[in-house]
Amino acid sequence: MPPSNEAIEPSAIDPNNEMGVLDRPTCLELLASTPIGRIAYTTDQHPMVVPVNFAWHEDTIVFRTLEGKKLDAAAEGQRVCFEIDHWNPEDRSGWSVAVIGPAREVTNFAEREQLENIGLVPWAKDKWRPAWIRIQPQDITGRMLR
Amino acid sequence: MPPSNEAIEPSAIDPNNEMGVLDRPTCLELLASTPIGRIAYTTDQHPMVVPVNFAWHEDTIVFRTLEGKKLDAAAEGQRVCFEIDHWNPEDRSGWSVAVIGPAREVTNFAEREQLENIGLVPWAKDKWRPAWIRIQPQDITGRMLR
Repeated sequence: MPPSNEAIEPSAIDPNNEMGVLDRPTCLELLASTPIGRIAYTTDQHPMVVPVNFAWHEDTIVFRTLEGKKLDAAAEGQRVCFEIDHWNPEDRSGWSVAVIGPAREVTNFAEREQLENIGLVPWAKDKWRPAWIRIQPQDITGRMLR
Repeated sequence: MPPSNEAIEPSAIDPNNEMGVLDRPTCLELLASTPIGRIAYTTDQHPMVVPVNFAWHEDTIVFRTLEGKKLDAAAEGQRVCFEIDHWNPEDRSGWSVAVIGPAREVTNFAEREQLENIGLVPWAKDKWRPAWIRIQPQDITGRMLR
């Protein structure tokens, strides 16, 4: 589970919107402890957002998928946005982390073998999800409201 | 609050990924009962995802914002993706709804006046968020895992 909102401290306040800015170690901790994120990729000339269960592995985002639009995006080497967040409607607190970087399908046999052993079981278990997608972070930003 | 996962029924099963497909009335009910969503827009030639608290009003998505990239996207009339979802890690169930359509800043005085009275208070209360963004849905899709 991610740390509770109370345990997260902003490192600065963004003067543009008065939201708290999360430093890189906090963003990485949240990426390592959150099971569900959302990949935003471009298709038909607009963004599309799809939730996936993922792992933070060797400083990259990895998840399984079937063929389809997510895979197409990855195969094209698109720069995508991967986002995680958590909100508490009761006290209107929450945080979000956005990772920007190129996505690719993992086609190397040894790399796939290694990913098969990290323990990431897709939530959609009914059907085998044969492809692995890996996102290499180029930019990681986080912010919070409390 | 959105209906519980148990109360949501898929209308069909997507043969491509075996996920449940949510019909339009279910998607609209979820949009009307969820306080936080995410706008994905294109900036610097990649998608960016930002959470916002929003309202479903007259079959459109409306939210407040400061100037900034979200507003730039809206002013450009971009087709954006607006996404909501909810997940339960315990039983690995959840749903998501994606809305595709053009975003615009509300500049008409009467339209702004009307939006000021729908009761949408931004979670980021510290600073007045003067601009309203409105997304006109062209395509609404939903899916679920249970």
